[in-house]
Amino acid sequence: MDQSVNNSSAFPKIVIIGGGFGGIELTKRLKNKETEVLMLDRHNYHTFQPLLYQVATGGLEADSIAFPLRKIFKDQKNFTFRVTEVERIDPNLKKVYSTIGEIDYDYLVIATGSDTNFFGQKEIERYSMPMKTIPEALNLRSMILQNLEEALIENDPLIKSSLLNFVVVGGGPTGVELSGALAELKKHVLPKDYPELSINDVKVYLVEGSAEVLGAMSEQASTKAKAFLEKLGVQVLTNIRVVSYDGKLIKLSDGQAIDTKNVLWSAGVKGSIPEGLSPDAITRANRILVNEFNQVKGYENIFAIGDVAAFITDEKPNGLPGVAPVAIQQGKMLAKNLISFINNEKPEPFQYFDKGSMATVGRNLAVVDIGKIRFQGVFAWFVWMFVHLMSLVGFRNKVVTFVNWVWSYFSYDRGTRLIIRRFSRIEPVMTKGRDHDDSGSSPL
Amino acid sequence: MDQSVNNSSAFPKIVIIGGGFGGIELTKRLKNKETEVLMLDRHNYHTFQPLLYQVATGGLEADSIAFPLRKIFKDQKNFTFRVTEVERIDPNLKKVYSTIGEIDYDYLVIATGSDTNFFGQKEIERYSMPMKTIPEALNLRSMILQNLEEALIENDPLIKSSLLNFVVVGGGPTGVELSGALAELKKHVLPKDYPELSINDVKVYLVEGSAEVLGAMSEQASTKAKAFLEKLGVQVLTNIRVVSYDGKLIKLSDGQAIDTKNVLWSAGVKGSIPEGLSPDAITRANRILVNEFNQVKGYENIFAIGDVAAFITDEKPNGLPGVAPVAIQQGKMLAKNLISFINNEKPEPFQYFDKGSMATVGRNLAVVDIGKIRFQGVFAWFVWMFVHLMSLVGFRNKVVTFVNWVWSYFSYDRGTRLIIRRFSRIEPVMTKGRDHDDSGSSPL
Repeated sequence: MDQSVNNSSAFPKIVIIGGGFGGIELTKRLKNKETEVLMLDRHNYHTFQPLLYQVATGGLEADSIAFPLRKIFKDQKNFTFRVTEVERIDPNLKKVYSTIGEIDYDYLVIATGSDTNFFGQKEIERYSMPMKTIPEALNLRSMILQNLEEALIENDPLIKSSLLNFVVVGGGPTGVELSGALAELKKHVLPKDYPELSINDVKVYLVEGSAEVLGAMSEQASTKAKAFLEKLGVQVLTNIRVVSYDGKLIKLSDGQAIDTKNVLWSAGVKGSIPEGLSPDAITRANRILVNEFNQVKGYENIFAIGDVAAFITDEKPNGLPGVAPVAIQQGKMLAKNLISFINNEKPEPFQYFDKGSMATVGRNLAVVDIGKIRFQGVFAWFVWMFVHLMSLVGFRNKVVTFVNWVWSYFSYDRGTRLIIRRFSRIEPVMTKGRDHDDSGSSPL
Repeated sequence: MDQSVNNSSAFPKIVIIGGGFGGIELTKRLKNKETEVLMLDRHNYHTFQPLLYQVATGGLEADSIAFPLRKIFKDQKNFTFRVTEVERIDPNLKKVYSTIGEIDYDYLVIATGSDTNFFGQKEIERYSMPMKTIPEALNLRSMILQNLEEALIENDPLIKSSLLNFVVVGGGPTGVELSGALAELKKHVLPKDYPELSINDVKVYLVEGSAEVLGAMSEQASTKAKAFLEKLGVQVLTNIRVVSYDGKLIKLSDGQAIDTKNVLWSAGVKGSIPEGLSPDAITRANRILVNEFNQVKGYENIFAIGDVAAFITDEKPNGLPGVAPVAIQQGKMLAKNLISFINNEKPEPFQYFDKGSMATVGRNLAVVDIGKIRFQGVFAWFVWMFVHLMSLVGFRNKVVTFVNWVWSYFSYDRGTRLIIRRFSRIEPVMTKGRDHDDSGSSPL
C-alpha cells in the first residue's frame, strides 16, 4: 500500500517504533546525520504521561499534555512519520509488518513503552480502569463525573456509596498523584458542584501491596507522602493486595471488602512489544533484554530503549526504572551509537545518570529526592511544577498549562469537568486488536 | 428512580430542558426568585456553538468552548441540575419522562435548540459530517487529520484526491467560517506538517444553494465574504445544490461531480423537540410555534425559547434567526414573564432587538453588520474576536482562548492537531436513541 516509506535513499534507514520520550530524543539527535529516519506510532501525537492524572481528574485539557509528532520534527529533513500499528517484525528479512503494509529497515529501534499490567487477572482487567493513554485518562474523567451524577439520583444507599467510593490500586507515583488529586476534587470542587451530596460520603482509598507508598523513593519521601495523603483524607492501605474485583465489590487481602464502582488500576506495567522477536530476548513483565548499547539480545541491528527495554546488570537485577529520564538518556546515547555502528566504529556503553525523582500529592504537597538531598512540602511542590512545566513539549502547551495551574491555585478549582465522551463499558466494534483507546462514534 | 427532583417545595417548579444560551439566561434571571428551577440537559456542560468550527479545525481545545453547567449556577440556591435525556412530555399530567424517570413541573420551558437538518436525505446524512455538538466537532477534527494521514500512503491518484478534497455544504456563518478555517489550515499548517503532500492537491469547496454566502447579512457583507474566501483559495460555488453523496462522489445540481471523502454539512437546522406536543404546535423545520410571551401554541404553562421556538409574525413570517442573542433576549424576558404568570400579573410581549451580526472568514478577514453600519477586514476581525472572547462563559476559558488566539496569530499555527479519538463510520453499540455523540470505548 505505502510505497513511499520504502523509497531507498543512499543512507541507512532507521525505523523507530514509538514517539515517546525515548523515540523523540533519538530522532532529534539524528538530525542532519546521514541517515533516513522513519518513525511509526499508533497516535499522531506524543503523550506527556506524567501529567495524565491531571487530565483524568479535570485539571488539564488533554490537548495540553499532547503534542503532534509531525510538528516536533517539522524542520528535520531526514524524518518521515506514519500513523500505524506495528503487528510483527521479521528480523531475518529486516522487515516490519504494519497496518499500512511492509516496511524495510536497516536498523530497528523498539521504543514502544509500556502498558498497564493486570498480572493475568482477567476479571480485574475487565472492571477496573487503567490510565496509560490520553483516551484512557478521558474515559476515567467521564467515569468519575458520570458516577457522581448517578449517585445524585440513586436512592439505594449501598449502590450510592459504591458510586462514591474510589479505590486506587498501586502506590507508585501514578497512584499517589491520582489519589491525591481525587481527594482534592472531593474537598474543593464537590461541595460547590454537588451541594446535594454529602462530602463525607465520598471516600478515596489507596491500596499498596508493599509496606510503603513511593517505594522507589527515599524512606523520608515515602513517609511524608503517606502523611500528606492522609492529611488530604485518603485512606492509605499498605501491605494489602487486591484479591478480586467483580465490578461491584473489591476484596482485599486483609479480609476487608469495599463496595465500589471506581477502581483505578496503577499497580504495574508491562512492555508493549511487537511479535517476531526470539523468546530468549524477552524477560519478566514482557520487557526486551538489551546490552549496554541497547542492542536487543541475539540481534545486531535491533535496539530497544525506554520502558520496554530491560537493561539488567549485576547491580541492577531488575533493570532501570520506567521513567522518562532513562528513556531520554538511552535515546541520546543510541543516536551516537547508531552512527558508530554505521561507520563501523566502537560504540559507547550506556550509563544511567539518576538526577533524582519526585512526586506530587496535592496543592503545596510534594516530595523530592535529589541524590542525598531530600525535601517535601511547598518548595518541593513548586520544584515539581517547574520541572514538569519545562518538560512539556511545545511553547503553547507550557503557557496553557501554566495558566491553568495558576488559575487552579488561586481559585481552588479545576477547569475541565466535562463529560465529552460518555464512558461506557459496552465493548465497541473495534477496528484493530491492541488499540483499546478509541472508536469515535459514527455521527449518524 | 430519582425522587429528589420531585420533592415538593412551597414554590412553583420550573423545569427547563436545555442548557444553551436561552436556558442559561433564563435560569440566571430566576436567581433569588420564589421559584424552584430544575434544568435538564443531556450533557453536563454548556457548549459555545459559535466556536465549534475552531475545535473542528484544531484551533481550540474542546474544553475551552464548553463550561460545566453546575458551575455556572453554583451559588444559585433554587437551582437543581440533572444530566438526562428527555424522551416525552405529558402536558395533561404535567410530567416530563426522561432517562432518569418521571419529573413533575408547574411550568415547562423547552430550550432544546436545534440539530442538523439533512432534509430527509438519508444517504447524505449517512456519509456527511454535521457539526452541532462538541463530540461532532472532535469527530470532524479526527476525520480531517486521518484523511490527511491516509492520503500520504495512498498510491491511487483518484482515492488520494478524494481524501484531499473538502466540500463544505451551506454558505451560512458556519459554512463560511469552516471553509475559511480549512483554507487557512491548508495554507499555513499543511506545508509544514505534511511536506510530502503537494499543497495544490488539497482543495476546499463551499457549496451554497442561493445566490450568495451569508444571505442573512447585508449584500456588502456577502460580497466581501465571498471575496475573502476566494482570496484564501476556497472555491465558492453559489446557486448550486447537492444532488447526492454516496461517501465517495458528491454530485451537484450544475452537473459537476467531485470525488471526496470529506463532506461537511452545515446546510440547515431543525428543532430538537421532545415527543408529546400537539402537532398543531409544530411548524416548518420542526420548530415550536410560540406567541409573544414565548408560550407554546395551545398550552398555558409550556414555553419555548431559542432556536427551537418559532415566533412568527406578519413582519417575520419565517420567525427570528437561530442565533444566540435571540435565545438570550427570550430567556431574559421569559424570566420576567414567568414571575408575572405565577403572580397572575400581565406579561410583557417579547421584542427582538437586533444588535447586528458578524462572521469571520480567516485571519484579518471578517464581516460585520451593525444596523446601517457595515465594515469588513482587519478591524471587523478584531471586533469579531473581542465579542466572541467576551461571550465565552468562564474566566479560565476566556484566558485560555485568548492565549491560543494570540499564539496562533503570531505563529500562523494551530495548536491541537491530535487524533485523540479515532473517527470511524462503524456504528457503535448505542445506549440511547438520539444521542449520537458519544460511546466512550471500553478500556478492555
